[in-house]
Amino acid sequence: MPNDMGSGKSAPFAISAGDPAGIGPEIIGKAWQRRNADNLHCFFVVGDAHSFAAHWHGPIAKIKNPHEAQDCFQKALPIMHIGDSGPVTPAIATTNGAQIAFRALETATSLARTGDASALITAPVSKKQLYDIGFAYPGQTEFITEKCDIVRDKAIMMLAGPGLRVVPITTHIALNDVAKMLTQDRVKNHIIASVNALKRSFGIDNPTIAIAGLNPHAGENGEMGHEEIELLIPCIDALNANGYTIIGPLSADTMFHAEARARYDVALCCYHDQALIPLKTLYFHEAVNITLGLPIIRTSPDHGTAFNIAGQNIARPDSMIAAIKMAAQIAMHRANFVQFTPDIMASE
Amino acid sequence: MPNDMGSGKSAPFAISAGDPAGIGPEIIGKAWQRRNADNLHCFFVVGDAHSFAAHWHGPIAKIKNPHEAQDCFQKALPIMHIGDSGPVTPAIATTNGAQIAFRALETATSLARTGDASALITAPVSKKQLYDIGFAYPGQTEFITEKCDIVRDKAIMMLAGPGLRVVPITTHIALNDVAKMLTQDRVKNHIIASVNALKRSFGIDNPTIAIAGLNPHAGENGEMGHEEIELLIPCIDALNANGYTIIGPLSADTMFHAEARARYDVALCCYHDQALIPLKTLYFHEAVNITLGLPIIRTSPDHGTAFNIAGQNIARPDSMIAAIKMAAQIAMHRANFVQFTPDIMASE
Repeated sequence: MPNDMGSGKSAPFAISAGDPAGIGPEIIGKAWQRRNADNLHCFFVVGDAHSFAAHWHGPIAKIKNPHEAQDCFQKALPIMHIGDSGPVTPAIATTNGAQIAFRALETATSLARTGDASALITAPVSKKQLYDIGFAYPGQTEFITEKCDIVRDKAIMMLAGPGLRVVPITTHIALNDVAKMLTQDRVKNHIIASVNALKRSFGIDNPTIAIAGLNPHAGENGEMGHEEIELLIPCIDALNANGYTIIGPLSADTMFHAEARARYDVALCCYHDQALIPLKTLYFHEAVNITLGLPIIRTSPDHGTAFNIAGQNIARPDSMIAAIKMAAQIAMHRANFVQFTPDIMASE
Repeated sequence: MPNDMGSGKSAPFAISAGDPAGIGPEIIGKAWQRRNADNLHCFFVVGDAHSFAAHWHGPIAKIKNPHEAQDCFQKALPIMHIGDSGPVTPAIATTNGAQIAFRALETATSLARTGDASALITAPVSKKQLYDIGFAYPGQTEFITEKCDIVRDKAIMMLAGPGLRVVPITTHIALNDVAKMLTQDRVKNHIIASVNALKRSFGIDNPTIAIAGLNPHAGENGEMGHEEIELLIPCIDALNANGYTIIGPLSADTMFHAEARARYDVALCCYHDQALIPLKTLYFHEAVNITLGLPIIRTSPDHGTAFNIAGQNIARPDSMIAAIKMAAQIAMHRANFVQFTPDIMASE
């Protein structure tokens, strides 16, 4: 149970505050308000305590280290203050804000690496301003991956809602580049990482993986595209011969309704929208982004800075709350998993 | 109201029986059983009356012409018998069955063309057997389009569920061919056909059209693909300058949840799965296929012959019932539309 973890045995979760002009501070504050109603594991923010006042007027407790979070969590939102980003105007991203967002990410990742935080949850950043200050990674995930000494290709994105988990095999590339990016190695890596994660982090001993075809009707026996015959089916056959349980390639349009979803534990999709359309159509407010393949637990809300609604007190904290809960579930499963098979704890 | 149409003023609907070994006869029979509960407009089947016995054991009334359907519809399923397909084994498609399916389609289309049927609803066929007997069209839609003297490109597929209408701009082609098939002409044709159909067939005076981007995040200002900037935005701007209301290109993953769907009347999508994934994820059992741009009303259930469950009496008639209801709604809207603007009745 999540809150058992907080009873002395498990460190609090670190939430990097993200861009101070986005909705990050607001949804973190609103999540803290739901700490008891949603039975949330103890967490603390890494960021600029002062910038929170631009978005959220609840009680704040400045802490110096993660261990102090436990004591004040019931009374105030614990914030490890790492510097001032200066005056914050909601919806106006600045390079000062990006500096703080970056330092928050760096510090929170380090705390997760040392075990002072038992999970890392990242609020959304503004990439443009991060790039302006010299951030040389496509996104937060790649930075975290490097800080965890993991090869970039081994860190894989899973998105999850209450009734669906998806893993896109390719992500932020033009649709026209998808087919050439799909290789046997890439597909197999994603399958194996997903299976290992479902066992270690989701408590599913014998997971069933569904793979979506790239083409309409999964190509209909080669009538509309050959990637299913030439690439996906050989991958599936090879892995199934080695004890995996993989179904597909399935027609992508008929694999996401309720009865279909009940047949598998995760859907591997060939490209971004094939994975994200069903997930966000079903679970727009509550979807969570999980990075698989890291030694640490890392989740994040599945939305951006939402500058269009920042500072209006209308942002919904559902996805942030779901990210905190998901981190707790993964921590619980990993703890159980370790008891029985400590030898394969090292990585997913 | 649909049933007012049956009170002397409007001809019955013709349902082509589709492949006799598929679930077509079963779902038509089950739809007839729901005629009063679902307030269905009078319809009759065009097909092999004898083959129905392999799937459905309700009362059948053989009729010689559509006008007889009205008198017997309450007591029995009216079937215009057009010949014997021989013994039928559920799930085993034969060329004899395909011959009957083809003649049923041909006859039902003709009856809709002459006005003896006020709508055409097509049950699913088995394409392989149709091709074996020389059927030279990709599917039923292209055959119907030609019989209506409409250029193939002008007949456009819309799929609809209770809370979402989608129009795929490209359909049954490999994903890798999508980008090159997207042309300004093609996009504009689909927008205009959709707007005209929403006015004429759905009673929406000033429809709002949403267009999905081709690439993830609608390309993110050219970061991931250029089709939005080079193709979609110019189309949208040109049409909006001419009085259309088109929003987009939108990020496809965030345009199909409930709040997002409330902002538009139809979603135009760049490819098959982008349109069909959200529709079938939300409305798997009740989605309807509608052919826009024809002089006749044509709908069909949005599923195939389902040989895997044929003859087991477990097929759900929801989509067939929805197709019958949709035809009635369109007929009602077109009748209203004609009263005010008879001059643009000729085509969508």
